[in-house]
Amino acid sequence: MANYPSKLFEQAVNEFAKLPGIGRKSAVRMVLYLLREEEEIASLLGNTIVKLRQEIRYCKHCYNITEDECCEICASIKRDKSIICVVEDIRDIIAVENTSQYNGVYHVLGGIISPIDGIGPNDLNIEPLLNRIATGICKEVIMALPATIEGDTTCFFLYKKLSNFDIDVSSIARGISFGDELEYADEVTLGRSIINRTPYQANYQMR
Amino acid sequence: MANYPSKLFEQAVNEFAKLPGIGRKSAVRMVLYLLREEEEIASLLGNTIVKLRQEIRYCKHCYNITEDECCEICASIKRDKSIICVVEDIRDIIAVENTSQYNGVYHVLGGIISPIDGIGPNDLNIEPLLNRIATGICKEVIMALPATIEGDTTCFFLYKKLSNFDIDVSSIARGISFGDELEYADEVTLGRSIINRTPYQANYQMR
Repeated sequence: MANYPSKLFEQAVNEFAKLPGIGRKSAVRMVLYLLREEEEIASLLGNTIVKLRQEIRYCKHCYNITEDECCEICASIKRDKSIICVVEDIRDIIAVENTSQYNGVYHVLGGIISPIDGIGPNDLNIEPLLNRIATGICKEVIMALPATIEGDTTCFFLYKKLSNFDIDVSSIARGISFGDELEYADEVTLGRSIINRTPYQANYQMR
Repeated sequence: MANYPSKLFEQAVNEFAKLPGIGRKSAVRMVLYLLREEEEIASLLGNTIVKLRQEIRYCKHCYNITEDECCEICASIKRDKSIICVVEDIRDIIAVENTSQYNGVYHVLGGIISPIDGIGPNDLNIEPLLNRIATGICKEVIMALPATIEGDTTCFFLYKKLSNFDIDVSSIARGISFGDELEYADEVTLGRSIINRTPYQANYQMR
């Protein structure tokens, strides 16, 4: 273990090194940066982090983050409350919102079923989703989960649970990404994209 | 620009993205991590950052960081004040200290001469170094600067300034690193390591 020149410096390095993707060398670099730059940068960062945890809450409907009881999307009268898009994470809401192709509301699971990481259905916001659907406002659920084994497992689990309700359940389309060459696509993706081929006209309109 | 679900969230992402080596995606990941984990982690990180800037000062002798007037190394009676090791950065002090091979004191330049980045001799702690040497306590200066063009330029500049004093000036040895294969060493390193060859016995003792 390195000998740091000051206890406070060492503590700051330790705290930064807890962040995801940050090792001790990067942590030292960040602390030195904060010491070197204007004091305002450090105080703003520090105070924002403290405020973040104190003031940010989860939306009571969809578990998106918000500073109020209810997030901007759920509170908006322009959004279609009859469609719920189920996502793993808040980052996925940001990604879907950036497409400007979706006008419904969301539901954040807060993870996906992953036995290896010890995450089961009870660790996710699945029960609140079922309660939301039980109110009868929702007519369609779109599952926008990762295209991984864990994502597929979670989709299957949700599909089973949702089949008790009289709603449409769909999953976002899997296929060849825009700009991809067929020869470099993996067999599973290319195989599925043939099985799930879409009529050309419909595909054309979507663009 | 992405639409973030909350102003405070966006501000936190912006502040994190100012850190060196951190892009917006990593910043979002960090903010979500702080929101997900226990509140203590966020408050500890935030408060440490604020305290860092308020309480950490630079040692009045060597510009190492410290919480007192004078750093631990300069304050220690066990360290040999007649040898000064000149380094670019506080990280280099940590690196040299970890070797346990050095018992003198340090002097942090706070950078190296780099015209491309607009850093000249006046931006560095060179004047304080010369004042320190003028007191007559120092008998030897070891320059431990990066093996780059900028590092060599800084060494040369310092050497010229230091030649006015009756002291020994040396630079840390450049050569083949421990564990390196000769065939993969670059020509400059290998060439210099032949020119600056050391008597075998001395080399043996050093290990």
